[in-house]
Amino acid sequence: MAKYSETIERLIEQLGRLPGIGARSAERLAFHLLKAETDDALALSDAIRAVKLNVHPCKVCYNLAESDVCSICGDPRRDHAVICVVEQPKDLLALESTGVFRGVYHVLMGHIAPLEGADAEDLTIDALVDRVKAGAVQEVILATNPNVSGDGTALHISSLLARTGVKVTRLARGLPSGGQIEYSNKGVLSDAITERRQF
Amino acid sequence: MAKYSETIERLIEQLGRLPGIGARSAERLAFHLLKAETDDALALSDAIRAVKLNVHPCKVCYNLAESDVCSICGDPRRDHAVICVVEQPKDLLALESTGVFRGVYHVLMGHIAPLEGADAEDLTIDALVDRVKAGAVQEVILATNPNVSGDGTALHISSLLARTGVKVTRLARGLPSGGQIEYSNKGVLSDAITERRQF
Repeated sequence: MAKYSETIERLIEQLGRLPGIGARSAERLAFHLLKAETDDALALSDAIRAVKLNVHPCKVCYNLAESDVCSICGDPRRDHAVICVVEQPKDLLALESTGVFRGVYHVLMGHIAPLEGADAEDLTIDALVDRVKAGAVQEVILATNPNVSGDGTALHISSLLARTGVKVTRLARGLPSGGQIEYSNKGVLSDAITERRQF
Repeated sequence: MAKYSETIERLIEQLGRLPGIGARSAERLAFHLLKAETDDALALSDAIRAVKLNVHPCKVCYNLAESDVCSICGDPRRDHAVICVVEQPKDLLALESTGVFRGVYHVLMGHIAPLEGADAEDLTIDALVDRVKAGAVQEVILATNPNVSGDGTALHISSLLARTGVKVTRLARGLPSGGQIEYSNKGVLSDAITERRQF
């Protein structure tokens, strides 16, 4: 197939590097941008640039931040003695949306998954241990995902924190609110039975 | 759900405006760009900017061009007396890839489809008629898509060109090379019978 001009080919190639965007989709997106109003297309270009230049990990908790410290770590009304450890900024947002937690966070930036080539050293675990060792932390809540790699990561962190004497907890396991026992799988049901609470 | 910072939300919003990219995909792409190497993300940003600033329609045929006139219109070895009329730059590239056609093109930038709100005035038909009226054109090949809107567009153009006296042809219809009669639909088979050629 004949080629488009170099500028267009470069755009198609760059779009094709995005996850889930194949060669055909990249071409379609490139043509959309070609047809779009210049202002709209440049707004996307500028938005990408702004994110790369302005957004950094928070120096304390590794949440996404536009200054040295994220808005949660910089908030004096939050309880800095309780750290909730999450895998990703997305998890942090999901927990924040409940409005239930008033402590601060620590974002691991992934989980331990040796088969995916993700080792403990790639995560921000050392920084978490340093935060705890620096004192003033009373509780660390491990809020990793309730799956094999999340549980493994939580286990690894809890063993590291055991020596510091800090209280280490994890999120509750059980039936998902709004769900049905009939359609729950064995793992969910065993958690629900094992972790039953007095009424 | 809690929100990301303004810069990130703006990127997600801009990505979500792309065709086929929903809110979830936009968020995923934004996080990919956040994690990506700064150089890689800025390469995408720059590629979008370059396309909008450098690529314009060719002044003669409305193909995509990075100078006033596209590479085909500017090529003296092409036969400028034969104009092949296509709907989109993509169609032009597909025809070019055969290497069979040595004339020049005219890109309509769409087809007539009143139900989609695409009228003849939105296309570059006037410019095509002007090119033909300017003389030196011997043949116009209508290479619109072999479907209702493509055929309608071709019919409209041929009626406009009838007064100029130029020879107007269209692409052949028949069995697709490599296809099977057994699986061909009625439209294809009727074309194949009607347009049969002497062996």
